[in-house]
Amino acid sequence: MTDYLKNLMTNGRAMYLAYDHGFEHGPEDFLGKSINPEYILDIAVQAGFNAVILQKGLAEKYYTGTKYQKQIPLIMKINGKANIWKGGDLYPRQNCSVGYAKKLGASAVGYTIFLGSAHDTKMFQDFGRIVEEAHQLKIAAIAWVYPRGEFVKDDTSPEMMAYAARIGLELGADMVKIKYSGSTESFRKAVEAAGKTKVVLSGGPRLEEAEFLKAVKSVLAAGGSGVAVGRNVWQHPKPLEMAKKIKEAVFA
Amino acid sequence: MTDYLKNLMTNGRAMYLAYDHGFEHGPEDFLGKSINPEYILDIAVQAGFNAVILQKGLAEKYYTGTKYQKQIPLIMKINGKANIWKGGDLYPRQNCSVGYAKKLGASAVGYTIFLGSAHDTKMFQDFGRIVEEAHQLKIAAIAWVYPRGEFVKDDTSPEMMAYAARIGLELGADMVKIKYSGSTESFRKAVEAAGKTKVVLSGGPRLEEAEFLKAVKSVLAAGGSGVAVGRNVWQHPKPLEMAKKIKEAVFA
Amino acid sequence: MTDYLKNLMTNGRAMYLAYDHGFEHGPEDFLGKSINPEYILDIAVQAGFNAVILQKGLAEKYYTGTKYQKQIPLIMKINGKANIWKGGDLYPRQNCSVGYAKKLGASAVGYTIFLGSAHDTKMFQDFGRIVEEAHQLKIAAIAWVYPRGEFVKDDTSPEMMAYAARIGLELGADMVKIKYSGSTESFRKAVEAAGKTKVVLSGGPRLEEAEFLKAVKSVLAAGGSGVAVGRNVWQHPKPLEMAKKIKEAVFA
Amino acid sequence: MTDYLKNLMTNGRAMYLAYDHGFEHGPEDFLGKSINPEYILDIAVQAGFNAVILQKGLAEKYYTGTKYQKQIPLIMKINGKANIWKGGDLYPRQNCSVGYAKKLGASAVGYTIFLGSAHDTKMFQDFGRIVEEAHQLKIAAIAWVYPRGEFVKDDTSPEMMAYAARIGLELGADMVKIKYSGSTESFRKAVEAAGKTKVVLSGGPRLEEAEFLKAVKSVLAAGGSGVAVGRNVWQHPKPLEMAKKIKEAVFA
Amino acid sequence: MTDYLKNLMTNGRAMYLAYDHGFEHGPEDFLGKSINPEYILDIAVQAGFNAVILQKGLAEKYYTGTKYQKQIPLIMKINGKANIWKGGDLYPRQNCSVGYAKKLGASAVGYTIFLGSAHDTKMFQDFGRIVEEAHQLKIAAIAWVYPRGEFVKDDTSPEMMAYAARIGLELGADMVKIKYSGSTESFRKAVEAAGKTKVVLSGGPRLEEAEFLKAVKSVLAAGGSGVAVGRNVWQHPKPLEMAKKIKEAVFA
Repeated sequence: MTDYLKNLMTNGRAMYLAYDHGFEHGPEDFLGKSINPEYILDIAVQAGFNAVILQKGLAEKYYTGTKYQKQIPLIMKINGKANIWKGGDLYPRQNCSVGYAKKLGASAVGYTIFLGSAHDTKMFQDFGRIVEEAHQLKIAAIAWVYPRGEFVKDDTSPEMMAYAARIGLELGADMVKIKYSGSTESFRKAVEAAGKTKVVLSGGPRLEEAEFLKAVKSVLAAGGSGVAVGRNVWQHPKPLEMAKKIKEAVFA
Repeated sequence: MTDYLKNLMTNGRAMYLAYDHGFEHGPEDFLGKSINPEYILDIAVQAGFNAVILQKGLAEKYYTGTKYQKQIPLIMKINGKANIWKGGDLYPRQNCSVGYAKKLGASAVGYTIFLGSAHDTKMFQDFGRIVEEAHQLKIAAIAWVYPRGEFVKDDTSPEMMAYAARIGLELGADMVKIKYSGSTESFRKAVEAAGKTKVVLSGGPRLEEAEFLKAVKSVLAAGGSGVAVGRNVWQHPKPLEMAKKIKEAVFA
Repeated sequence: MTDYLKNLMTNGRAMYLAYDHGFEHGPEDFLGKSINPEYILDIAVQAGFNAVILQKGLAEKYYTGTKYQKQIPLIMKINGKANIWKGGDLYPRQNCSVGYAKKLGASAVGYTIFLGSAHDTKMFQDFGRIVEEAHQLKIAAIAWVYPRGEFVKDDTSPEMMAYAARIGLELGADMVKIKYSGSTESFRKAVEAAGKTKVVLSGGPRLEEAEFLKAVKSVLAAGGSGVAVGRNVWQHPKPLEMAKKIKEAVFA
Repeated sequence: MTDYLKNLMTNGRAMYLAYDHGFEHGPEDFLGKSINPEYILDIAVQAGFNAVILQKGLAEKYYTGTKYQKQIPLIMKINGKANIWKGGDLYPRQNCSVGYAKKLGASAVGYTIFLGSAHDTKMFQDFGRIVEEAHQLKIAAIAWVYPRGEFVKDDTSPEMMAYAARIGLELGADMVKIKYSGSTESFRKAVEAAGKTKVVLSGGPRLEEAEFLKAVKSVLAAGGSGVAVGRNVWQHPKPLEMAKKIKEAVFA
Repeated sequence: MTDYLKNLMTNGRAMYLAYDHGFEHGPEDFLGKSINPEYILDIAVQAGFNAVILQKGLAEKYYTGTKYQKQIPLIMKINGKANIWKGGDLYPRQNCSVGYAKKLGASAVGYTIFLGSAHDTKMFQDFGRIVEEAHQLKIAAIAWVYPRGEFVKDDTSPEMMAYAARIGLELGADMVKIKYSGSTESFRKAVEAAGKTKVVLSGGPRLEEAEFLKAVKSVLAAGGSGVAVGRNVWQHPKPLEMAKKIKEAVFA
């Protein structure tokens, strides 16, 4: 089995700095200087993240061909949705080809699947094709798997997290990014369900520092590989210090 | 007529170990060690199954290029759905190309058709194309045909099973996987309707051992070619012993 | 104008044995031995039909490369629907490519258009493309044109049959298969509307022998080219005798 | 700017004989001999029309490779709908490729756009592509632009006709075919809106001879380029005489 | 980072003459001579605009190969919708390929995204692909981003304008065209959100001269790059004088 993640992990562990919030939520998430992609890229480099997660536009204008490309790998997020429409169409279509992501220097592509939505088989289909294209180009395919829709009562229940992790494995993801299931024990079930697919925590909204670090440690204790974190770092008053603490937790 | 199944049958009979439940049902089906694909692959090899049935992700990470690839043929399931959404969209889209399945070592591709659903002509279309692609690559195309939808009163009635079997033949399936119709006599009608398309029993949920073996024997007595079994083996307390009994029934 | 039908007619007349009922209706249509494709193919050959009409799966497994391929031409039906779903989606999608039909030995492809349904322009589009592909491969394109849908009050009215025949001509069909309009006079209008597109009667469900033969004679008297018949032959107690009578009517 | 219409106009004026009614309305429009395409083609040639307008099927069977191909240019209508379904789906899909139209000898392709319908942006998209394909093949693209749908109160109002004409220009049509707006003054606004895109009158249903000729003269006086006429010629008791009068009006 | 806009800006500033109103609104916007594209092109050249914005049809017939092509660059608008249908389908499909725009001499393509509509992920997908195609052809991709739909309460709120600007950046637009947010301070937030993506004001309907110029100055003061203006110039009684005032504001 080719290790498509070799460029994206250190000793089997990883921390990624996520910065696709301008797409998913709009600039309202950006406190202080965090609206500036270079500010974020500097944090990512200085704090020693394993990769930065960007949409195509940010990559093309701030990463590709800049100093950052030599300093840190890129995970290109290739679908997304804005948070304005609330009418039920939960299908964030692909907005960047795998070939273009590779051309812009990405070591992996990321794609969100809303497991349980009316459109989930479309996302299974898209991601299946993306896996094939990514592997033919020798880059990794990472699935963000979030249970969602009217039939999902609790989108972080242990059962849902295990299902989300397993769907990533079944569809050929090299890594799956899921939410915290609430306990080490339940997250361990998800990691187990994912098998050889690596599991990283999806950081989510800003939490109390201690609470977030506890979740990270729980994930690692459960056999998870690390964390993709955004707001909990760059909304923190001291991002580099927070990143250092996360790093210690991930690589402990 | 090319025999696309020659790698997948023994003296015209076959037993396959199905393991796509992590996709279709989530990990809740996996009792004991059965969440681990290698545990399942070991059972498949040791019990002498004719092939194992996996989704792409499992194949790529656990089968292709491993020892298992030399030990047992692979049937790649190339569509599927999760069991969360209940709102009526019964179209499990294709998530793996036939070419990629072949590349990963598959001897056949499997595709589910929900006969009778609002979307069945889409699945007829997809499967028709899959047959063409598979045969051009010299591998088999297997249809899982399950009557389903608001106009299907009884999805295992003799009439429905015969129709399901016939649809497989009409669309060019080399083999069709259907549910048990309740009697040898009625299953014989389905086998007859399928003509030169081979018919195997879809194992379904765990049954009492005797009940399951009775159904297998009935299928064989009816002219069926064998069984694709999952939960009735790996949810059994003694999978290898159960597999042995099935084997005796199939190859009697 | 190339005569794409030259392989499929005798002195401008034709009778075809239709056998796609396993797809359209399920095996319930098959009385006696008629569930067996070889039984049907034998009738077709022995009775001297101009061609047999099969879906892809039957062709691939029973016709291509067998003795039958040398004995009788093949019309490949390349779309269809099952008769379970009744909820209004009347779009029988294409399930076999024209190229594959040609590869399997077909002299023509057949495609059903539900004229008047909500989806009819999709079928016009599909069939338009099919005509182009067929003619580039030097085979004929035959349209089954059946008025259908909530705005069709009487699907065999003289007006509807004339419209159906004309749609075949307008879209480039080499032959159109329509239902009986009830009289020689009205059928003559349909034949006239079809112009250089040949018109054959769609046999339909089993009728009294005399009634059916009367319709065939009416069609021929009206200038029609012949008949595509299925159930009225192979549900008949003496298929070869019935076929002989039809033949006499067609080639009188 | 290439003059894609040079084969289709005489001194900047044109009259076309439209004969796609068998598709759009069924044979009920065809009085007397007009059901026979050769009868129509003879009229077109004898009366000196600049081109005849046919759907693909008629072209392939009556025009391409016949004497008519040498006598008169062809405008191929490449979409259409039947007039049975009334349930609101106003998207007449393309049923002939531009390449095939060219291959059959067409000097132009024609495509109907229902401006104002729920599907109009699909037709804008289709026609935009058709313009590209036509111009790459050096043939003209003609838009039939008809306002239609629940938000169109008056489909021949001066405002609507000007909008229809302009949409033709904006999308790259070489010629636009629109209905009569009711006065020379208002039609002049439409012609002005169309700019370098030529404007021809859509003849419509049979009118009193004087009334129809008055509209033609008004169109020419308004700067229009001519007329596409069908029923007002071939439903006329003396088609050639009527055509002669139209010709005098167009080329006055 | 390649500067795809180098042909379209002067010292980092730009003013564009927009003229796609015949498509979006119909000819009713055209006062006086403004219905004539050459009249508009003359204004664009004489007033020294950086580019003119046209739909494909106008470009092909009035720009490509004419004197104007040597005098002024072209931004080709490649999607659009008419303003008749009001029933909720807000998806203005692409009607011109990027390759054809390039062939006709365009230095950039423009595409409208209705952020917040039910279909916005389709537009994200289209525009994402358009960016790839444009950059491979070495031309710029410009996004018109307009918040719209039932969940958009105020389509020019500071939050919406900042989100619109950011979406342009995230999707890879070289330039984004947005509406005025009401104040310099709030527009500065949008410019900041857009990062390296240039921001120009969308001129909108005719305003009082002073009011419009005030908005332009505010945009420039906020760090915006200029303005795309249509009606505020060519509906003005003295277009060239108005254009001169805008130019002074933009290049102050």
